[in-house]
Amino acid sequence: MKTPDAYDLLKVPTRSPKDCRKEPTLRETEKIRQELVELQERLYAENRRSVLVVLQGMDASGKDGLIRKVFSGLNPQGVTVHAFKEPTDEELAHDFLWRVHAQMPRHGMIQVFNRSHYEDVLVTRVNGIITDKEAKRRFAHINAFEQLLQDAGTTVLKFYLHVSEEEQRKRLAERINDPAKQWKYEAGDEDKAKQWPQYREVYEDVFKHCSPESCPWQLVPSDQNWYKAYFVAQALRDALRKLDPQFPPSKHERPS
Amino acid sequence: MKTPDAYDLLKVPTRSPKDCRKEPTLRETEKIRQELVELQERLYAENRRSVLVVLQGMDASGKDGLIRKVFSGLNPQGVTVHAFKEPTDEELAHDFLWRVHAQMPRHGMIQVFNRSHYEDVLVTRVNGIITDKEAKRRFAHINAFEQLLQDAGTTVLKFYLHVSEEEQRKRLAERINDPAKQWKYEAGDEDKAKQWPQYREVYEDVFKHCSPESCPWQLVPSDQNWYKAYFVAQALRDALRKLDPQFPPSKHERPS
Repeated sequence: MKTPDAYDLLKVPTRSPKDCRKEPTLRETEKIRQELVELQERLYAENRRSVLVVLQGMDASGKDGLIRKVFSGLNPQGVTVHAFKEPTDEELAHDFLWRVHAQMPRHGMIQVFNRSHYEDVLVTRVNGIITDKEAKRRFAHINAFEQLLQDAGTTVLKFYLHVSEEEQRKRLAERINDPAKQWKYEAGDEDKAKQWPQYREVYEDVFKHCSPESCPWQLVPSDQNWYKAYFVAQALRDALRKLDPQFPPSKHERPS
Repeated sequence: MKTPDAYDLLKVPTRSPKDCRKEPTLRETEKIRQELVELQERLYAENRRSVLVVLQGMDASGKDGLIRKVFSGLNPQGVTVHAFKEPTDEELAHDFLWRVHAQMPRHGMIQVFNRSHYEDVLVTRVNGIITDKEAKRRFAHINAFEQLLQDAGTTVLKFYLHVSEEEQRKRLAERINDPAKQWKYEAGDEDKAKQWPQYREVYEDVFKHCSPESCPWQLVPSDQNWYKAYFVAQALRDALRKLDPQFPPSKHERPS
């Protein structure tokens, strides 16, 4: 059970626990990744269940980097990533879950969402495109939708990459000066930093309303990239261990 | 409000009311179709809402004929029909609503479902592929799904084409002898006729559990094709009148 503060973003840590050191954690993450390779192969071979990994976080929380760090090395035949952009005209002419449902993993697959259906109760709300009442209605639809997925054998893992207001401001500033990061800079990035408190509120509302026991939000301390990767890799590994996917029996008799 | 017998298929009529005569009804249906042409054009031009028409019925209840009679003459640019067949391997590797959601009408469109997501709580149940418990779970998912559609501006109309056990048997027999109907004959059609009572039970359960006030099942007396077409055309016309779609204002100033 979650404590009342579990989803208070001003209280949830953005940094690793005190006793957690970088070098041993990096080594541990590497070990976990080796195990993930094996578990993913079994999931694919079994071809009976699937995993959906939802990644959310404010701008510059490091979603792209996390995907690179955790999922590189897995067999891309069994792992796909879908990045949700602003909806197209065609997508806007349907209900908000239409384009999301289309991207669901088939049996055997791990699907990673870089942003997700939650944008439709986050950015839309901060920008006043939907009312609070509409947001509540969407929470119910999201919960029903995720239950549908789970009933069909999809494990749903939801991670919020939690960066502090200061860390976000620092990272957005780097986009202006670092040649390797400039391509990510967008006009308005400075304004986004100012919206941290507004996003905090709508995120907290999401965590409270869309965390059923079967697929609660996991808040990932993300000011340090090495800890963030470790946290998510471990959670994914644990979920896959729990599924315990098995190679199916051979369809052919063994030659004697 | 529905009376307790409203969904009792042994009591719901399969034929037109006594005072309803064929010739005037055919003329009336033709008038309704003219109105549908105009209403559909407005819906399309308005480009803000949509309509989903779900057609279910036992084998030989006349779904294909109904579609031909009611929807021919409408502009096919604004009306599409999707016939659901047995799910493919790819579809079976997802939740049961995945392939259905993909076929949702975009704004401005009328989408007709020849069979639908309800097959997943009908044929699957009669054939013992899903348990009663799973069926109940699916009812809840279907209701949540249809509410999602309605919240996004889709009017959902659900018609059950109700033929009597005798009429069904007669029609299935015709498939063997009538050259224009032989292509519809399938091995096992005789067995299907024997399943009428089993289908009756699972259909009644669907009507009871999936008839919220916003989109209840409408049971269409369907032993006479002319009455069936009139009933559905009228219900569709009434729904479109209620939507009262409007041509959008011109984007250009009128030349003076």
